[in-house]
Amino acid sequence: MTILEPVARIINVGLPLIVEGVPAADVIQLDWRPPAFGEADVARLALILDDDVTADANARAITAVHSVRPQLTRVRPAKEVVPGIADGRTLLHAGPPIEWERMCGPMRGALIGATLFEGWAETPDQAEALLDRGEITVDPCHHHGAVGPMAGVLAPSMPVFVATDPSDGRLAFASLNEGLGKVLRFGAFDDEVITRLSWMRDVLGPILDRALEAFGPIDITSLIGQALSMGDEGHNRNVAATSLLTRRLAPTIAAMEPSSDAIAVLEFLAGNDHFALNVSMASAKLSMDAAVGMENSTLVTAMARNGVEFGLRVAGSGAEWFTTTVGPADGLFFPGYGPDDANPDLGDSAITETLGLGGFAMAASPAITQFVGGNPDDAIAATKSMRRITLGPHPAFPLPPINFAGTPSGIDVLKVLDTGVLPLINTGIAHKLAGVGQIGAGIVTAPPEVFLQAARSLANRRGIS
Amino acid sequence: MTILEPVARIINVGLPLIVEGVPAADVIQLDWRPPAFGEADVARLALILDDDVTADANARAITAVHSVRPQLTRVRPAKEVVPGIADGRTLLHAGPPIEWERMCGPMRGALIGATLFEGWAETPDQAEALLDRGEITVDPCHHHGAVGPMAGVLAPSMPVFVATDPSDGRLAFASLNEGLGKVLRFGAFDDEVITRLSWMRDVLGPILDRALEAFGPIDITSLIGQALSMGDEGHNRNVAATSLLTRRLAPTIAAMEPSSDAIAVLEFLAGNDHFALNVSMASAKLSMDAAVGMENSTLVTAMARNGVEFGLRVAGSGAEWFTTTVGPADGLFFPGYGPDDANPDLGDSAITETLGLGGFAMAASPAITQFVGGNPDDAIAATKSMRRITLGPHPAFPLPPINFAGTPSGIDVLKVLDTGVLPLINTGIAHKLAGVGQIGAGIVTAPPEVFLQAARSLANRRGIS
Repeated sequence: MTILEPVARIINVGLPLIVEGVPAADVIQLDWRPPAFGEADVARLALILDDDVTADANARAITAVHSVRPQLTRVRPAKEVVPGIADGRTLLHAGPPIEWERMCGPMRGALIGATLFEGWAETPDQAEALLDRGEITVDPCHHHGAVGPMAGVLAPSMPVFVATDPSDGRLAFASLNEGLGKVLRFGAFDDEVITRLSWMRDVLGPILDRALEAFGPIDITSLIGQALSMGDEGHNRNVAATSLLTRRLAPTIAAMEPSSDAIAVLEFLAGNDHFALNVSMASAKLSMDAAVGMENSTLVTAMARNGVEFGLRVAGSGAEWFTTTVGPADGLFFPGYGPDDANPDLGDSAITETLGLGGFAMAASPAITQFVGGNPDDAIAATKSMRRITLGPHPAFPLPPINFAGTPSGIDVLKVLDTGVLPLINTGIAHKLAGVGQIGAGIVTAPPEVFLQAARSLANRRGIS
Repeated sequence: MTILEPVARIINVGLPLIVEGVPAADVIQLDWRPPAFGEADVARLALILDDDVTADANARAITAVHSVRPQLTRVRPAKEVVPGIADGRTLLHAGPPIEWERMCGPMRGALIGATLFEGWAETPDQAEALLDRGEITVDPCHHHGAVGPMAGVLAPSMPVFVATDPSDGRLAFASLNEGLGKVLRFGAFDDEVITRLSWMRDVLGPILDRALEAFGPIDITSLIGQALSMGDEGHNRNVAATSLLTRRLAPTIAAMEPSSDAIAVLEFLAGNDHFALNVSMASAKLSMDAAVGMENSTLVTAMARNGVEFGLRVAGSGAEWFTTTVGPADGLFFPGYGPDDANPDLGDSAITETLGLGGFAMAASPAITQFVGGNPDDAIAATKSMRRITLGPHPAFPLPPINFAGTPSGIDVLKVLDTGVLPLINTGIAHKLAGVGQIGAGIVTAPPEVFLQAARSLANRRGIS
């Protein structure tokens, strides 16, 4: 071998374990898996679907998504801005539709808490009775242009972030992040939780709204883009976006009256490293909604979990949900907790991965590997693996550790079926009992079943059988 | 070749150009250079110095440096806290000692500005005349426990950050960062500059001081450690530390009266991404000072530039400066400027590299490569190369991109001489004319000559000839 000959490397097909003894740098992992997870009928449909019609639709869909420049414009009570919840008793929840009876503990707890918060009941028992009797309508956030982390429960009086598409006036909404510990989104509903929610309604929301009115809209794409160069991945790590946002708004907030409220708001922002998560979520929802209903497109527009089922939506099949049972996240548990305590995966926050943040932007966030497991090389490999199932890099989200390439963005159902590579989702792990809170964090993959369902539905719509 | 045999690689000795045609990943660059930069007499002295006495001294020195946990305790007028400048007319400047006559343009401009700011002269001509006649004492910041970026000019009425060692009460000081553009540290001294300095003296300093008194001391090590996981390297990139610090102090600042001043301070902090640089510098100075005068240690305790000369101080030779002529930085220039406009390298900010930040922590900051040149792989390589000349990783400064290894910390004169690897310094590039400001940024290396001088002096102190 002369010194200029390319160095021979080992090519491995299939499971990585086969060559575990070989140093990783010298192995090329082809990672071949049977198409469509071994479902021959779907593999055939997917091959037929993979044509110019789909390619054209997907090009239009991803261009539409990447063209959205969400602006954080307002923080308003949900009932004022979120469609369909102003009258009667409606509460929104995370994930695909699910009836009260089948809901997991944390979501039931959060709905009880929201019922108390709205004053529709005096006691948790009364609240539960109302929900049992169906006197409160429960509906997915996603059906109302909204998203919420974990239980994702949104009540009409809660303030929401309003993300606006300046090009067409479209809106998307997300609840305000309560912080860690005993909070509604993990199903807690005691006095501490309701008191905090009331303060968020009466003080935090109005002060932030007036500050945004005075300051002007915040370009969320630019905020997240900068945070990605500061170790955030926009889902499980949000300290940079939160700090940048707070620092930018602090002078305007400090000018609000009464000054005691302004100070309390700044204290809340100083104490909540995840505050910007919900801004990121509203922004991702607004971006992905630009492709909803785009005929023939196989682009994933939403991934969401309700603690029982995982739901997938695809551009070409509009509002249809493809769902399957979901398991708990695999990850790192806080001391004293383990997999037996974990609730199945929960929350609308996977909308961030749908856009290319979170698990898809792991390379940006080597520090997060200490929180969800793995090491910085794994984080870079995770991002690179997501290139195989996405339509292209997000032009506004360059990731410095991969030489400023854009984060892989826009999951293509056909690419998932072709490669067998499943979307990676960074997630918090909730205790299965209402109100205990977060007990860990980790990485999940979306389940194969929903992609099979989506392909069947998309083929059916095209008259392919 | 079987698949388990290690893959053969090319080993290259000497200049990288020799094998430029070979893919980089397959080349191991031994990077051999003649010891002591080819100076045989120093190579011999260095070999003798490299004994148990030195090793013991260096172990004590680096332990002392790494044990310091600087606290940001106060922001006080320099004349109140910085020793030796309360009486008469003294101005401090960056780098090793230099007479007014030999100073570069930006430093002369800054001293004229400081003279006007103190009210010792009415016009720039009067100020220059006072300085010409030696009626104002000029002295290095480093001789007074202080550090300043670029011209580093510190006047008695200016507010300074006070970094305190809680274990022994030692103090170190740094001026407050004015922001970018037309500022004193680049030699500007017009009304805009003096007005800003007056506001910093009358409003910014007092508000920050009262806020720190109310909030309590800030642990700078923890602040910088967190910022290193957010893309800062603590010298040329400080947006994370600035944002974290602002977010933490914002509620306390917002509570200060009059509220218009509090708001103005928050606006200033929101608009200056480099505000935390000077905090980082004071903290590095305090840490390195713990080793000053530690007999027989070959640890570098300061690197500083006055725009004409580069100065080095070493633990075992106490207050002695080793100096040599300095050139301009090589880097990226702002549009309209080039190397001919550049002032020779300037400022005390290389104290950050002395501790292991800045150029030594490049791996933490892939985004900075867009500012100083290179790519993220270069940044990681830069940090790894600094391991060859340092005493050990800094335990409080893990860098996520290199798998949470501590940043290489504590330059050893003997290691520099042995390897021929020179310390890397991230730096801003000043225009050579006073007051034009920053015209670029880049990376410099410390000059070999000062390490040769240091070895001769240390050998002499040990009676080695």
